[in-house]
Amino acid sequence: MSITSSPLNIKLVLVEPIGPINLGSVARLCANFGIEELRLVTPRCDPCDPLAQRMAVKGIKILNNAIEFSSLIEAVADCHKIIATCGRKEHGEIPLHTSEEALTWFSKPTDSEPIALVFGREDRGLSNNELLLAQKVIRLDTSPIYSSLNLSHAVAIVLHDLHRKSQINCAFNEKQTEPTKLPKTIQLEDYLTDAQNLLLEIGFLLDHTATARMAKVRALLQRANIKEGEVALLRGMLRQIRWAIQTKDF
Amino acid sequence: MSITSSPLNIKLVLVEPIGPINLGSVARLCANFGIEELRLVTPRCDPCDPLAQRMAVKGIKILNNAIEFSSLIEAVADCHKIIATCGRKEHGEIPLHTSEEALTWFSKPTDSEPIALVFGREDRGLSNNELLLAQKVIRLDTSPIYSSLNLSHAVAIVLHDLHRKSQINCAFNEKQTEPTKLPKTIQLEDYLTDAQNLLLEIGFLLDHTATARMAKVRALLQRANIKEGEVALLRGMLRQIRWAIQTKDF
Repeated sequence: MSITSSPLNIKLVLVEPIGPINLGSVARLCANFGIEELRLVTPRCDPCDPLAQRMAVKGIKILNNAIEFSSLIEAVADCHKIIATCGRKEHGEIPLHTSEEALTWFSKPTDSEPIALVFGREDRGLSNNELLLAQKVIRLDTSPIYSSLNLSHAVAIVLHDLHRKSQINCAFNEKQTEPTKLPKTIQLEDYLTDAQNLLLEIGFLLDHTATARMAKVRALLQRANIKEGEVALLRGMLRQIRWAIQTKDF
Repeated sequence: MSITSSPLNIKLVLVEPIGPINLGSVARLCANFGIEELRLVTPRCDPCDPLAQRMAVKGIKILNNAIEFSSLIEAVADCHKIIATCGRKEHGEIPLHTSEEALTWFSKPTDSEPIALVFGREDRGLSNNELLLAQKVIRLDTSPIYSSLNLSHAVAIVLHDLHRKSQINCAFNEKQTEPTKLPKTIQLEDYLTDAQNLLLEIGFLLDHTATARMAKVRALLQRANIKEGEVALLRGMLRQIRWAIQTKDF
């Protein structure tokens, strides 16, 4: 039985949640906003904790069916679009968006592929490397004096904004633009890993610079919302370059 | 010392709150969104409850300074504008608004008189008589299947919407973003020419496909608004790849 009221296929992902009150509350919010699937990356509290169970109310089934993953990359591997949230002030050069801007981008009625909405740890959010897995990063607008929102409150705000957006888009969905096919996260990931390996082999990257430099490449591609066909083009290029390097007499 | 970041003089009113977790959470939200005053109408839990105190985090002062009233009418007596929230389906003929509609009405920078934002009981909200004290009544948009939001989540959503509205209305709130250093056209052009030459040499591009394929790469980089430093990074990569191809024994 589906409880989805919008056509969006959202996976709500919590990274290392620590508080059972938050965990249960988020499951309830999923039910409130028609999100069917909750994914947990190495949770630091137990979904069976009585507090979590009590806070979930009618989201109890979503809580009990939550799927656990051992890393964020695994949790979003099948997703085509990823939006993350960021409460920290230090976020490198990752561009931040309001929830309205970010959600507009993925609340099109044509989005039936799984899309991920990722929230970080209560105490320190998501790392910059985790943020770079997302094409869009939301920072919620709060008082500058005390900007640290409780996890479940951040989820409430984003899900409400998303629900509102998708309702609006459903009501006025006469504008059907050609949907852009985005790559699965794992496709982009594989390309970046291959590229990194090649660049290490030819000495462009060194072990201690690899992560930082590849993060720049990833940020560039994410900012462009790289499409599936473009990832394929870059992979083809990479394969040919590798061949040319290995073949002495092409 | 004021912690208000907007010029609005909001009194957040909870009618008969029963849960200490909610009470503390709402105090925290007040701090998150620059609301200085929390008013409680015959609360059914104690603001000094350890759970409430713990959930308040940096809203602890607001929680400890919360003012108690014995009826809603007393709690809003000094307020000029009143917005209430309603989760129930039965609300007589009281017109309901989205939070956007309702908040637009009182988030003008000229509103310096006290205005009240009223939230009802966890279990049964506000009575129709209480709702009639308000000029506007908000019903939040949720899944029709399970519309009952936790109290503090409803507060989070409304305060965020209000904060956003009042920020938009503050004409001087133009966000100054750091100017990004874009490359000169010629720098990107040179890179693309070099890349095309290399890809032709190694047989990835053919004369008759080169233009179309390089146009795809260009489109990707333009869409990302590639920066000067990123062009330099890509050029460095290209130089090293050329070197690796030409050097047989690196």
